[in-house]
Formats: sequence, structure tokens, C-alpha cells
Amino acid sequence: MKPEALTSLLEQVRLGTLDVATAGNTLADAMRQAPFEDLGFARVDHHRAIRQGFPEVVFGQGKTPAQIATIAARIVGAGQTLLVTRTDETAYAAVRQEVDSAKFYPEARVITQTTGSEPTRVGTILVVSGGTADHAVAEEAVVTAHVMGNHVERLYDVGVAGLHRLLAERRRLEQARVIVVVAGMEGALASVVGGLVSAPVIAVPTSVGYGANFGGVAALLSMLNSCATGVAVVNIDNGFGGAAIASTINHLS
Amino acid sequence: MKPEALTSLLEQVRLGTLDVATAGNTLADAMRQAPFEDLGFARVDHHRAIRQGFPEVVFGQGKTPAQIATIAARIVGAGQTLLVTRTDETAYAAVRQEVDSAKFYPEARVITQTTGSEPTRVGTILVVSGGTADHAVAEEAVVTAHVMGNHVERLYDVGVAGLHRLLAERRRLEQARVIVVVAGMEGALASVVGGLVSAPVIAVPTSVGYGANFGGVAALLSMLNSCATGVAVVNIDNGFGGAAIASTINHLS
Amino acid sequence: MKPEALTSLLEQVRLGTLDVATAGNTLADAMRQAPFEDLGFARVDHHRAIRQGFPEVVFGQGKTPAQIATIAARIVGAGQTLLVTRTDETAYAAVRQEVDSAKFYPEARVITQTTGSEPTRVGTILVVSGGTADHAVAEEAVVTAHVMGNHVERLYDVGVAGLHRLLAERRRLEQARVIVVVAGMEGALASVVGGLVSAPVIAVPTSVGYGANFGGVAALLSMLNSCATGVAVVNIDNGFGGAAIASTINHLS
Amino acid sequence: MKPEALTSLLEQVRLGTLDVATAGNTLADAMRQAPFEDLGFARVDHHRAIRQGFPEVVFGQGKTPAQIATIAARIVGAGQTLLVTRTDETAYAAVRQEVDSAKFYPEARVITQTTGSEPTRVGTILVVSGGTADHAVAEEAVVTAHVMGNHVERLYDVGVAGLHRLLAERRRLEQARVIVVVAGMEGALASVVGGLVSAPVIAVPTSVGYGANFGGVAALLSMLNSCATGVAVVNIDNGFGGAAIASTINHLS
Amino acid sequence: MKPEALTSLLEQVRLGTLDVATAGNTLADAMRQAPFEDLGFARVDHHRAIRQGFPEVVFGQGKTPAQIATIAARIVGAGQTLLVTRTDETAYAAVRQEVDSAKFYPEARVITQTTGSEPTRVGTILVVSGGTADHAVAEEAVVTAHVMGNHVERLYDVGVAGLHRLLAERRRLEQARVIVVVAGMEGALASVVGGLVSAPVIAVPTSVGYGANFGGVAALLSMLNSCATGVAVVNIDNGFGGAAIASTINHLS
Amino acid sequence: MKPEALTSLLEQVRLGTLDVATAGNTLADAMRQAPFEDLGFARVDHHRAIRQGFPEVVFGQGKTPAQIATIAARIVGAGQTLLVTRTDETAYAAVRQEVDSAKFYPEARVITQTTGSEPTRVGTILVVSGGTADHAVAEEAVVTAHVMGNHVERLYDVGVAGLHRLLAERRRLEQARVIVVVAGMEGALASVVGGLVSAPVIAVPTSVGYGANFGGVAALLSMLNSCATGVAVVNIDNGFGGAAIASTINHLS
Amino acid sequence: MKPEALTSLLEQVRLGTLDVATAGNTLADAMRQAPFEDLGFARVDHHRAIRQGFPEVVFGQGKTPAQIATIAARIVGAGQTLLVTRTDETAYAAVRQEVDSAKFYPEARVITQTTGSEPTRVGTILVVSGGTADHAVAEEAVVTAHVMGNHVERLYDVGVAGLHRLLAERRRLEQARVIVVVAGMEGALASVVGGLVSAPVIAVPTSVGYGANFGGVAALLSMLNSCATGVAVVNIDNGFGGAAIASTINHLS
Amino acid sequence: MKPEALTSLLEQVRLGTLDVATAGNTLADAMRQAPFEDLGFARVDHHRAIRQGFPEVVFGQGKTPAQIATIAARIVGAGQTLLVTRTDETAYAAVRQEVDSAKFYPEARVITQTTGSEPTRVGTILVVSGGTADHAVAEEAVVTAHVMGNHVERLYDVGVAGLHRLLAERRRLEQARVIVVVAGMEGALASVVGGLVSAPVIAVPTSVGYGANFGGVAALLSMLNSCATGVAVVNIDNGFGGAAIASTINHLS
Repeated sequence: MKPEALTSLLEQVRLGTLDVATAGNTLADAMRQAPFEDLGFARVDHHRAIRQGFPEVVFGQGKTPAQIATIAARIVGAGQTLLVTRTDETAYAAVRQEVDSAKFYPEARVITQTTGSEPTRVGTILVVSGGTADHAVAEEAVVTAHVMGNHVERLYDVGVAGLHRLLAERRRLEQARVIVVVAGMEGALASVVGGLVSAPVIAVPTSVGYGANFGGVAALLSMLNSCATGVAVVNIDNGFGGAAIASTINHLS
Repeated sequence: MKPEALTSLLEQVRLGTLDVATAGNTLADAMRQAPFEDLGFARVDHHRAIRQGFPEVVFGQGKTPAQIATIAARIVGAGQTLLVTRTDETAYAAVRQEVDSAKFYPEARVITQTTGSEPTRVGTILVVSGGTADHAVAEEAVVTAHVMGNHVERLYDVGVAGLHRLLAERRRLEQARVIVVVAGMEGALASVVGGLVSAPVIAVPTSVGYGANFGGVAALLSMLNSCATGVAVVNIDNGFGGAAIASTINHLS
Repeated sequence: MKPEALTSLLEQVRLGTLDVATAGNTLADAMRQAPFEDLGFARVDHHRAIRQGFPEVVFGQGKTPAQIATIAARIVGAGQTLLVTRTDETAYAAVRQEVDSAKFYPEARVITQTTGSEPTRVGTILVVSGGTADHAVAEEAVVTAHVMGNHVERLYDVGVAGLHRLLAERRRLEQARVIVVVAGMEGALASVVGGLVSAPVIAVPTSVGYGANFGGVAALLSMLNSCATGVAVVNIDNGFGGAAIASTINHLS
Repeated sequence: MKPEALTSLLEQVRLGTLDVATAGNTLADAMRQAPFEDLGFARVDHHRAIRQGFPEVVFGQGKTPAQIATIAARIVGAGQTLLVTRTDETAYAAVRQEVDSAKFYPEARVITQTTGSEPTRVGTILVVSGGTADHAVAEEAVVTAHVMGNHVERLYDVGVAGLHRLLAERRRLEQARVIVVVAGMEGALASVVGGLVSAPVIAVPTSVGYGANFGGVAALLSMLNSCATGVAVVNIDNGFGGAAIASTINHLS
Repeated sequence: MKPEALTSLLEQVRLGTLDVATAGNTLADAMRQAPFEDLGFARVDHHRAIRQGFPEVVFGQGKTPAQIATIAARIVGAGQTLLVTRTDETAYAAVRQEVDSAKFYPEARVITQTTGSEPTRVGTILVVSGGTADHAVAEEAVVTAHVMGNHVERLYDVGVAGLHRLLAERRRLEQARVIVVVAGMEGALASVVGGLVSAPVIAVPTSVGYGANFGGVAALLSMLNSCATGVAVVNIDNGFGGAAIASTINHLS
Repeated sequence: MKPEALTSLLEQVRLGTLDVATAGNTLADAMRQAPFEDLGFARVDHHRAIRQGFPEVVFGQGKTPAQIATIAARIVGAGQTLLVTRTDETAYAAVRQEVDSAKFYPEARVITQTTGSEPTRVGTILVVSGGTADHAVAEEAVVTAHVMGNHVERLYDVGVAGLHRLLAERRRLEQARVIVVVAGMEGALASVVGGLVSAPVIAVPTSVGYGANFGGVAALLSMLNSCATGVAVVNIDNGFGGAAIASTINHLS
Repeated sequence: MKPEALTSLLEQVRLGTLDVATAGNTLADAMRQAPFEDLGFARVDHHRAIRQGFPEVVFGQGKTPAQIATIAARIVGAGQTLLVTRTDETAYAAVRQEVDSAKFYPEARVITQTTGSEPTRVGTILVVSGGTADHAVAEEAVVTAHVMGNHVERLYDVGVAGLHRLLAERRRLEQARVIVVVAGMEGALASVVGGLVSAPVIAVPTSVGYGANFGGVAALLSMLNSCATGVAVVNIDNGFGGAAIASTINHLS
Repeated sequence: MKPEALTSLLEQVRLGTLDVATAGNTLADAMRQAPFEDLGFARVDHHRAIRQGFPEVVFGQGKTPAQIATIAARIVGAGQTLLVTRTDETAYAAVRQEVDSAKFYPEARVITQTTGSEPTRVGTILVVSGGTADHAVAEEAVVTAHVMGNHVERLYDVGVAGLHRLLAERRRLEQARVIVVVAGMEGALASVVGGLVSAPVIAVPTSVGYGANFGGVAALLSMLNSCATGVAVVNIDNGFGGAAIASTINHLS
């Protein structure tokens, strides 16, 4: 309940144009409300852009193309930016029926549709990856960060097995405002980058590697145990999540 | 051995119409018996409805359609309610050959056939889910609870990332007799619901999520460690099991 | 904010004895408030008895005796029942300085102090344990359930290695309203009891056993995978938690 | 080197028909030898029947049909019993080209070909299973035990959720010389059977179950932690291995 | 209820000296009974020697000396053999108060008291250990097997790092009727022994080793995955359990 | 090699006051150097304050008091701020011998010594904790963040079991620039806070809880799987690490 | 920057043909450089052959055929030896378009193209495998070691279940300079071989086996815990990695 | 049986001074023998120095001081070098009673006694460690490598958080023949060193670190997944094992 509405209601009570019982019920109800839209199978959280700075993001995995398309239509219809992650060509075809200008990034597995004018981009988020096999996750981070209004740069294939490739780019590392490190195998890249820069480093472990990688556990544990400070970690293969908090940090004034 | 049968046998001994040796053998045998039906590949437990309040449920996974159909025919033939979980269209086609009025719920992956008149439904079991990807498990819980004779309500897509969606439904939470919380990712919904209500909460972790969800382990551990009291947990993705104990609780007089 | 207070405030506005701005501020504040007491190091939740049917319970582990005593004094001072778990003689001595009639149950590692008259006890919670080594956890459950106003009975040392000990008590199993099964090692007792009764079974795995018990993991997984329905699980060694949800269930009218 | 060969060689040295250097080399070589056949990709251990009472068994998984057929031909050609596990129709077709009387058991996924006359069967190995979904593993045990020359009986679908089904067969349990218990989910059946009988129990955990079964880990840990004595465990889903040690035990004179 | 008692009761009914109702109650009660003794904190299973060939064994860990002594007195008082495992000097002192001729084996951590005449020992159980650090577990196995009436021999410190130590004892390996292999670290000894003999091998993993032994998990998994057949496994550090099933096997006629 | 030094050297070459070979060697050496001090057992990284904005922090665990004191003396001697974590009274006594104005925070287990004038504190880092048992870790975060030049506020004991305690402080949550959430048990607090605010949230799982907490794994997995975006995670019990990256973020201009 | 270039530059400064500022910039840049080639999606490390004795190896998994072909063309174009692991027929077809003399080893899943004259092969690397199912990994090791310029021999199917097969080859084991042991199941082969020889043993666990092999974890832990010294371990199924370090060792002069 | 002995025996047979039966028995016995000494609780493997280049090493953990002293006396009595790992002052005192010139290295927890003249030391093993807390393990490696006759150098406290400390020592890294990397936390040091050098790298993970290090698992997995080739891994905290294989490699001619 917005402040003006509250004041207006109380004025009505004071003036006698609204009785106490009705006003009481209205206030009791207001204590429970916030804007969302109930689609039966989903509750779209239109309030999130105000509360968190970016609208609700659609996690595509486990949803049918039809469900994704319906949710997408509501989000775009509410004038908000659309971002669907972990999705594919089939879902994209369904979304296009509803939102014909939506774009699909196959490597990143992301559908987006921005609204209004191009945002004023701030700072620079540098997405660093260890090897070619980490690209899908790194691209999910890149597209997410771009849609959320950041300057984004890529620094790919700089794994620590050939350290000079990374050290050669030290200037770009030092100039970034926030760094997202995407790496599989032993994930040492996060520690090494963390030791070279003063920017916050968000580490995204990937499930790339031989057997004892255990689906990303090796990289995850490595990053959590980083001997360099200034490193925090998100979920395995979660390029979206890494970019989202990087964007939050980058937009701090 | 039913009490009357025992009395009758002893009366026969007393009257001398049955000799002691025969009676002794009959009694020794009776000490080992209980009603079930041996199909060779399965022993259908017809006694279960008396012992536990609901007939044996068929776990479809790992059984052939033919096996499911045969078991289903026996259960329905014995005048009992049929419930097959973790099943599919193919098995349903086979069951229809034997039990033509059986119903299939594709999202819940459940086949049912009720018998006799509609049961008197008691209490309310509220099935709460975190997100759209939890629907299959939540629907398994809903159909199970309905077949077992409970009032069932759904409260879906109220994950804690948008807490106001949950708080807006606080009245429904407070009015439920038993709550089944179905959630993946970090499973925090169980703790939050558990802290808001006085009803018992049965938590069902799901295997939905990014990498370090580890097939539901994250949600499972989260729910087992709930800082709110009044929460107990069933197996990962086990919507049936969650509903079954919720029904048992709800039917306590 | 209680309904009468809200009505009273609105009445004052209507009568002009309270100006709109002040009333607005009061209402805005009320939207955020609920009764708790801030001790600096802890926020005692005095509202919990109303919301959940039992006051906040103090988890003793990791708190100093002085902290426990201070919290205990506030809870008893608010006229509520005291329950401290995972505690010891030293903390008890400190609590006695503040609450001289508090009682200590050494095997259960619990301190309690009840208030007012003896509660009307309802139903029967039967606490079943597998072996002597499970006693500490079983006793935590027994004391918790007793303090929470239930009839409580013990059925100890009936592990499945000597099944006749359990079957001999089948009548007591059948008469219980809720059953708490406390078992370590392979935890099979939960499944066996679950298959024999129609009451809800709350399973509490314990960390008792040889090496591959892994601190209770074997029993935990066993109970989560119970082939009998009607079984739900709480955390390892969490006798308190098992009794708490059993009490919640037992108090359903 | 057989005793007679050694004596013969020494006699030749004594008689001077063999010089010392040649004899020395022969003996040195003999210290390293034992009969096996090198196929390039495999070394068939023809000595195993003498050393261990049953010829080498072919683990089909990861071998091509052609490799299986070649090994099978050598084993049968050496007059030994053939047993191929974890195999399928395709491999069977290849084996039939070489060994036309070989038999295939599809549920057990086993190919066999016995040689010579029917063996004198000893004792009784009782294969007990928890549920229909454990059949494939149980059948692998049954066929293995049969081929190895044991009397074999089945007692299927007697999981502890309906304990009377098991107790009704107590006499068969008591009459078996060795018992193989095949069970998934929580694997409690091994403990319960172990507590009822004096025969040795070999427990075979299966990977059947809902999420937190973790591919058989729940049943495995449960069985390792059996509170009943007289229970030992083999690998998950290893019906062959369970039957093999049961046969070894059953053949002890 | 013994057969004679049943016959006697039925005779009384036939003769009219016992009325049907009373007889019915007596029979109904008998269906639930088996001999055990309820000490309050424990139910001593006096029936176990008949059912399983050896009386109930007392697992000392987690029991007070007083509890152990009380149980010990009852077992010895019932004329049965006493075996307490995982115990210590303090418990032994308490047991001595009740059973003054009890013996304590400190390395094995076992208290025993045999009754009657020396049993006729059968077969030979050979307890094989990998290294000096496995002695406590191996000795638990040796003492257990001895008390249970087996010939027992030791073959210690024959780990596979020096294979000739094991091969030098091949004759003893071949002459044993059952072999218990106790090994930590990588537990390879079980596979190697299993490949050399035709006797059944019971493998006992121990928690001995450097970091990634993980408290015995390395040896446990190694033994479960033995490429040699004829190997089954018991719990980590469970020398008692290994010897118990070995004894069961050894006593098969 | 600082720019001026490089220019100076080249000038000398140009002027002929330095020969080419010597200059070449000097440059080759410079390519490998950076300022650190070799104490034999440790290499103090005096360069870190320039590179990362804060001097090297001493991780006290596993170091002797004498080693800590020596390192501390060098850091303070170099005019840098001292921060020793995971330390105790004994190490503090040793440090006091070298740095007599050092301060010790026993709950946080931290020794510090700041240098020069009070820093201009920026922004606000809010440290939120779930329960009293999380205090040690939360205090480590608070002291670390304070020493690093941030405004720090505490919001303790607001676990989700009593959600109103957290919601009552919503304004403080919304006003923080960065939030550090310290929570054990199921760690749901991170998700709930993450869903309420737009600030970046750094989650610190703690090892507080009953058995299946597994030393903090439950909270760690929960936080990594947060359904709210804007959450990144550091190591279990790593209050220092959480504060360090929070400070890095807070100091972004 | 090569020494001659550095000297030349300094000479120019001395002669005045290059000004100090330009020279300063050139040197500063040189401090960051090393030869690699940026393909956008990959940075080919042409420097690796000089630094590590063998050019960059292409890990095929997760790369498209087109990416592999492009990288392959650059490596061959730079006159270096090509080695692509974890690849298949499809990628090979793409590589053939660029490098028409490349060879494909289907069992090893490796593509190679050597350059120049046949290398002088040194020492002998003996690749030992436990069973037929380990062939793919063993062949990856064999091809890798061959391409890297070693004498390579195979000793396959000598698992410890038939120890005489291994002991019969003791002379070959003793003659190898480095041994690579490839084994699944319980991985005991590494310990047994390690105990027989004085050569360094590189152990490669494979993911071959029944359930509790856990994708190679059983063999991995077994090998890490080898009671024989002189054994070190690489990742599960990593035949390439095992051969690579074996080659490094074998080339030590 | 040495070649001369074999020839001599055969000569005796040829000459008729030894009968065939006796010669046959002698040869049969010889096939089973190899030199070791049976102390009852241990079999000292005096043959190992010949077979593996270094005598049996005593793993002190789990052995009593008296056992260690007895074994030590036998090893030294046989003229061999003594090495006891994982030991302490108490065991050292016992050993001193038997071997008065033995030396104790407290940080390494190692007792040694060398024999004869100083060995000719070869090559250089460089032991590199990440941080001060890794010293105990690194020192175990240093002392082991020294006793085994290698040149040994230390490069300590060069963790990747301050990469310049490592890069400054690049020349020493490049000059080592074998490198042992000892690191805890995320263990990234192994990958970084592995990428810089052409020497074989033996990685020793340590159990140093915050919670999610999990007793060294994080570093272990990191090292197994090293993206640099030429890295192999030994057990957690196993400085001895790392040095032993490094010595084996270093002594290859």
C-alpha cells in the first residue's frame, strides 16, 4: 500500500466518508498484498524489478515450451525485460509466437527481449574462461550481463596450464570492475585471477573434465577454498547466477 | 485366524468332532498365515487395507506394462482402490485392457481406479510447491492425497525468492490441517512454511536445480536441517510418500 | 496489531482525537511488528507459542552457560515453558541461578521448567528404540514429548535382529496414536514398524554403529528409502525434532 | 609344474640324459608358469576351475559381441562350463555362431553352456527378493547358482512393508543352507532375514528406488550395518557375485 | 509355545477341564510370545542361541559399565556363553563383580566367559591381516571365532606390498575352510587372497591409512569391487561381524 | 621495477654510464621480481596492499605462536595493518611481545593492529546471522570488515523459523550496501534475504547443526542453490572471506 | 623476448638510434608477452613444446568438429605434432579436411599427426591393464606414449583375480623403465605391481565395474591408498594424462 | 633361490650325491620362499631393498613404541637404513633404547638411522609448498627424499594468491629434476607449477583449510583434475609417499 493511498484512506475515515469497519478490512488486506500475477501453474513476480532491480528471470529447464511462452508474454506485456535461461530452439519457436522480436542465443541457451531504449551501460564485467569447453556457461554469463545493462568483455581460453596467456592480459584484468571466472577441471583459474586483481571475483565452476571432476565438484571445492581473498562462488554451470550478482555489484553507485 | 474361527475350532475339540492332532496342526499353520496372493512374480498384499488403511500401492518403475496390468486387475478384482505411481501411457494402455475405467494423470504419472462411493473427505491437505519445475512431484502428491480420501488444495510457485507471494497466502497456510511442501533448489520453503504454521509439515525435496543440487541432495539436507520445528522429510521426488503420510496424519480422529 | 487496537485507532481518527499523520505512522510501524525481545546476542521469540503451539526451544550446543541462563530467565519470566536441549550439568547449574525449580534430565541432556498447572495430556506417542546405544536420543524424544503435553510411552531395545521382541508388543504399537522410531545401524526398524501399523511413524536416525554407519548416514538413507509408507524422517540424532512434530500431529483435533 | 614332471626331469639329470644348464633353465621357467591362453585382447584363465572350483566367468559389459564369442569358444573348447553375465541378445547371437547350444536368459542377462552330465546338486540356495523391481538381479543370482551346481529356490516379493508375507515362509527360510537376499530401497530385508535364520546370508543391494537411494547406496549401507549377525555383502546389483560366494559356501563339505 | 504344551491345552479342552474362552485367550497370547527378558533398558534375547546358534552378543560401545555388567550376569545366569565387544578395562572390572571368571582380551577389546565343557572345534578359520595397524580388528575376529567354537589360525602382516610374504603361505591359505581378510589402506589383500583360494573369503575393511582412506571407505569400496569371486564384505572395522558369519559358514555340516 | 627506475636505467645506457650487458642482466632480473620478504618458513607479501587493497592476512591455524608473532612484527614494521584470523590467547600473548598495542577479539578469534589515522569508512556492510551459535563466525566477519575500513552493522539471531524477526528489520536490510549472511542448519536465511533486497549478498555457511548438517555441507549446498539471485558463497565458517569480498565490493567507487 | 633482441635494443639506445621512451614501452610490453595465437574461441599455446617438451594437446570433448579442425590446422601449420584426445569419427572427418594425413585410433579415441622424421625412442613404458573392459583407456595411454616418442609395450588382462598371469610376466615388469597401470573395479593391480618393481608406477583408475565402483571412485581411492610405495595417480579414465607424465619421466636423462 | 644354488643342487643330483626325492622337495620349497623375518606381530621384508631400491619403511601410526623399537632394531641389525614415519617423541625414546644413534625430526614426525657411508646424491628434488600450514607434510617429504639419497631443496610459502613469489623462483623450478608440490586449500599450486616446467610433478594434497576443504578432498580433487599435464597425485598428507616416488624417478639412470 503506497503512502498516499494510506493517507487518503485515513482522511476518508476522518471525514466520515468511509466507515471504520470497511477501512479496517481494507487495511488488514493491504498488510498481505504485493503485486504478482497468478497463471495457475506459475505466479509471475511483477514486483521483482522494483525490489531487486531486474524482473523475474525464467529458468527454462523442466518447463514446457507452452508454459515458457505464456510466462514470456506476460512479462513482455508488463513492459519488462525478458530473460529465459536453459532453454532451446523449440521453446524459442513457441516464444516467437507470442513475442516476435525475441532473440535466441544458442550457445548460451538463452532467449531475451529487451524493452524501451538501450540502457546506459556502466562499468565493465570481464568474463574469463579456462577452456573452450567452458564456452556455453561463459556465454550464458555474457548474455545475462549484457541484458542487465553492463559493459561486458570476454577473455577466453586462458587456463593456468599456459599461464603466460593470462599474464599477457593482466591489464584487462586490472581494468575490469567485476570479474566472472568460469572454469572447470581443477578451477585454479579463480584463485590465480583472485590473486592478481583488486576487483571482486565471482567464480562459476563448470562440469567440464575427466572422471574425478565429479560433475563440477572438483572445481566447486577448489573455488570455495581459494587461497586468494575476494572470491565468492555460485552454483556449478550457473553462468546466469554469476552474471546476476556481478551485475548487482557493478550497479552499486 | 479370525476370533470366531478360533472359537469354532475349540468348540469342535470340546465336542469331540475334531481330534486334537488335527486341531493342533491347524492352529500351528494359522500362526503363520495372513492373506496375500502369490502371482509368481509378485505377492499382492490384500491385507494391507485393513492393517494400514489403504491397499497396496503399485510402484510402476521397473515393472513391465503386463505385470502392472495383472497386478491392477487383482487389486480391482478384490474390490480395492487402485493406485499405480511412476508409470506412463504405455502401462496405462495395458491397464485399460483389464480395468477399463481406470484414469491416468500424465503430469503426476499416476493411474488410479477408485471403487464404491465417493469417500467422505476430511480435513485439508495443502500441497505447496516452490516453482513450476516441481509440478510433476507436486501433482503426484495431489492425486495420491485425493485418492486416499482427503480434501486437497494446491498452492504453487511460491518459492522464497519472492516471499510476498507466500505471505499473501498466509491464511490458507494457517487453515490447512497438514501441509506438504514440495521444493527443489535449496528447499528453503520447508523451513519458512514450518516457521509460519502450527500444522505438521511434510517436506518433499525435488531433484530440480543447477549442478550442486546433486539430484536433490541440497534440498534434502536443507529440509532435514530445518531450523523450524514441526517438519519431517520423505525421499527425493517422492510426492506419493509425502502425501501418504500426510493422509495418515489427516485421518487421525 | 490486534483487531481491537486497529478498530480503536480508526475510531480515534474518526473522532478527530488522533491526527492522520500520527495514525499513518503507527499503522506503518505495526505492519512490521511482532513480539520478540532483543537480548543483543539473541532475539527471544515470545510470539512462537501463539503461532506454533509451543514456545521457542533453546538449542544448547554452541551457547555459553551464561547465555542459556539469560534466555531461560526471559522465557520463564514471560510465563512460558522452558525447554533447553543438547545441554549439560554446567549449563544446568547456571540456569538454576535464575530458575531454581528447573529440572535436568542427564540422559536426555535436557533442561525443562513447566509453568502453571499440569496440561491435559492427549493421545499416546510411543517412542520405540532399536538398542541400548540409542537411549540418549530416545530419551530426548521422551522428555520433549512429555513437556509438550502428550502421553508418552517407551518401547526400547526391540531391534529387528530379534524380531519376536517387537512382534510381542504389537498391541502397544497398534494402540499408539503417533510412533517415534529411534534407531541406528541400518535403521530397518522404521520400515518394519511402518509396515505393521496405521499410525504415522516419525523416524529418527542415530549415529550409533560401526564404521560404514558414517555418523548416522546409513540409518538416515535407510529410513528415507523405507518401503513402508507412512514414514517421515528428521535429522540424525534429533530426538527433539522427532518428538516435536509427533506432538504437533498428536495435538491435531 | 606337476610333481611327476619334476621327478622325471630330475631323473634325467641323474641319468645324465639332460645337462644341468638346460634343466636349470627349464626349472627357472617353470617357477613362473601357469596355464592360461593369450588371445591378445584377453588372457583366458583355464587354471581357474582347478584353483577355485569354477572356470573363469565372462563379464560381458564393455566387451564387443565378437570378443565375447571368441572367449566363449575357447572356454567351451577347453571343456569348461560357460557363463557370460551382463550381456544381451546381440552378444548371444554372436556366441551362437561359435557355441550353438548356448542358452540365453534375458531377464538375468546371462548366457550359459554347461558341459558333460548334469552335476549332482547339493544343499539349497534360497534367493529372496524384496520387490518386483529387483527381479533382474535376483534372476542373475538364480541362474548363476544353478549353473554352478546348486539346488536353487526363489522366494520373491517379500519386502518388509508386508512382513506377514515373509513370516509365512519361515519354514523355507529355515530349511535353506545359504540365503541370498536381493533388495533395493532401504534393504531392511537382509537384517530381518538375518535375524530369523541360522544360515549364512549373502546380501545383494540393488539400485532400485526413489532419489535418495543414490543408485543403491542406501541399501548397501543398510546391509553393511545390519544389526543381525551372519550377514555379508557384495557389490550393488551384483547378483552373480552373491550367487558365486553362496555356491562356494554351499559346496563346503 | 512348545508342541507338548499345545497338545496338553487342547487335551484339556477336549476333556472339558478348560473352557473354550480361556483356551482361546491363552492361544492368542501364545501367538505373540518368545523368550526374552526385559531389563527396562534392554531386552535380553535368550532365544537367540536356539534360533541362530549363538547367544546374543553385547555391543559394548555406548553402554555404561553397569549396564554391561547387568546384561552379562543375566546371560551367564541363563547358562549361555558371554561375548562383549568394543569394551574396555573399566567395563571388565564391572563385569568381574558379577561374573568373576570372565576373561578380557585388551587388544581385541573383548570380554568373554564360556560355559560348560570345551566345544568340539571344527574346520579352520584363517584370519589374514595386511599390516600391524590392523591387529585390533583382526584380534576381535580371532577371539570371536574362537569363542564360537572354531579352530582359528592367524596369518598377519602379509600385505600385498611384499607379495612373497603371502605366496610363501599359500599352503595355509589353501587348507583353511573359511578365510577372514582384515585390511586397511587399499584393501587389495582381499582380491589377491580371493584369487588364490577356493574357500569363501569374508573381507573386513579397516579404517587404517592416510587421508583419502576416509575412515575405511577406500578399503570398503575396494573389497566390494573385488575382481575375484568368492568375496563378501562386512562393515568397516567389524572384526566381530566377519568372524560371526565365518563361524556360521564353518559350522555348516 | 617502477617506471622511474626503468627510465633511469635506460638513460644511463644512453649516456654510456652503464654498459649494455649489465643493463641486460638487471632488466632480466627485474622481470622476475616483486616485493616480498623471505623469513625462511614464510614469504611475507608486502606487495599485496598495492595489488589488492589490503595487506596479507595471517591465517593462524597450523602456525606456532612464535611464527605468528614474527610475521606480525614484519607486517607492522612495514607500516601495514595487521590481521590474524583463527588464532587464540596464546598466540596473542606472543604477538604482544612484538606489537604491544595489538588487540585481540576472543569471540572472533582475531588479532588486529591498525596503523596511521582512522580510515574514512564507506557504505555499510550488514552482517546478518541466523542464530546464537553462528556468533563466532559472524564476529570474525564483523571485525574483518571493520579493520578493512567499512561501516559495519550487526543483525543477529533472525533465523527463518521466526520470520517476523527478520521482516521487522526490513528497512536495515534495504539500507545496507552489501550484506553478509552467516547461517548454519539449512542456511535458508541467505535465500530469504536474497529475495528481499537488491544489494549483493555474500553467504557464509556455518558448521552449526544436528547430524545431517555434515559440518556445514547442508548450509553450503543450500546457499549455492539459492533460488534468489544476487547471492554468492564463500567457504564454510569463513567469516573472514565473506567480509573480505564484501569489503572489496563496498569499496568500489 | 629473446636475449639477442634485448641486447640489440639496448645497443640502439646506447647508440641513440632509439629513444628512451620508446625503448621503455617496448620493454614493458615484452614483460607480458609469450607466443600464443588467439583464434577467438581458443588461444593455441605454441610455446608449450619449448616449455614442456610437447605441444599443446587438444581435449576433444565439448568442442565441435569444426573447432577441433581449426585448432588442428594451426598446430600442424606451426610444424608441431598433433594429438587430439576424447574424439570420434566425426571430428576426424573434419580434421582430415585440414590435415589429410592425420590418423585416427578408434579404440583409443585419438587423432594424431606426427611431423618430421621418426623420433629416437627411449626407454620402455609398459602399459598394464586389468581386464578387457579397460582397453579404451589403456589404448589412449599407448597411443599417447607412442606419439610422445617412447618405446611402448602392452601387458593386458592381468587382473589380480588370476595372479599367475601377472607373475608369469614378471621379467617384462622388471625391465620397464616406467609402468602405467590401468585398472577398474578395485584397482588392486596398482598396489600389486607397485610391490613387485622398482620402476615408478603411474596408476590410472577406470570407471569399469558394478555399482559401488561409483564411476571409478573405488579404483581411484584404492590406488591413492596403495600400500606399495612408488605409485602416483592421475584422474579417472585419464589414459592420456598417465602416459604424459610417464613420458616426462621416461625422457629424463 | 640364487642361480648358483640351483646349479649346485642339480650338480649334486647329476653326481648322485643327492637323491631325486630330496632334491625335488628342496626345489618345491624354494618356489615358495623369499627372505622375510616373522616377528609374530610383523613380517619384516628384508628383501625389499633389493626388489625396490629401499628397505621397508615403518608406518608408525597405530603401532606401539615397543613394536616400532623392535622392528627398528631388526632393520638396523640387518644393515639397512631405517625410516619411521608418522611417529613421535615417545616412540623415538623407545627406538633410542635399541638404536642409539637414530635421529628424530619433530616437524616431519620422522625417525631415521642411515647406515654406511653417505650416498652419492643425484639430481635435485624440489619440494614446493603453498603455505606455512603445509610445513609438516613438506618436511616429511624433505626428510624422506634426503634419506633416500637425493639432493633436496625447499621452496616454501609460494601459494598462488601471491603469484610473483612463485614466478620469482622460476629458475629454481626449471632446474629441478623432479618437483614435489605440497598444498592444501584449493591445491592450485600443482597446476600452476605443472604448467611452468617440463619436470614431472608429484602433487601431495594436504588437509589444511577451512570447512569445505573436507580434510584435503578439495586439494586432492583439484590436483587430480590438473589442466596441466605432467602431474600425478599421492594420498592426502602423504609427504612420505610423494617423496618416495620422486626418489624412484630421480634415480632412473
